[in-house]
Amino acid sequence: MCEATVFLKRGTDEEELLLEDVCIIRPDEETGGLFLQNIFGEQRIVSATFDVANLSGHRIVLKATT
Amino acid sequence: MCEATVFLKRGTDEEELLLEDVCIIRPDEETGGLFLQNIFGEQRIVSATFDVANLSGHRIVLKATT
Repeated sequence: MCEATVFLKRGTDEEELLLEDVCIIRPDEETGGLFLQNIFGEQRIVSATFDVANLSGHRIVLKATT
Repeated sequence: MCEATVFLKRGTDEEELLLEDVCIIRPDEETGGLFLQNIFGEQRIVSATFDVANLSGHRIVLKATT
């Protein structure tokens, strides 16, 4: 299983867990943010941009834009 | 192994293979682009932004900014 846990960073260091077992991250055209979906079909749309991916560590960090 | 193949998209549809078995993608502060590293230690720095990640498909697409 190659899914990742996605965290959302607000400000400098604070990171909150956004969604686990994420398999898809893509632009959300309607909001201009990012659309996430995990292997269980759970979805999130966030005002954020991509920051860091550590795929071996199954960890992706997004940066909040609002 | 949860690494991904990273492609670089120029224009609308054209995608070129950038690097395989990528485990790390992070901002490159010096260039303002993205730094990639794979499990063999190969590195790339590209003028690009994150576009789409399909982690189950081991596929990440970046969008060229220059």
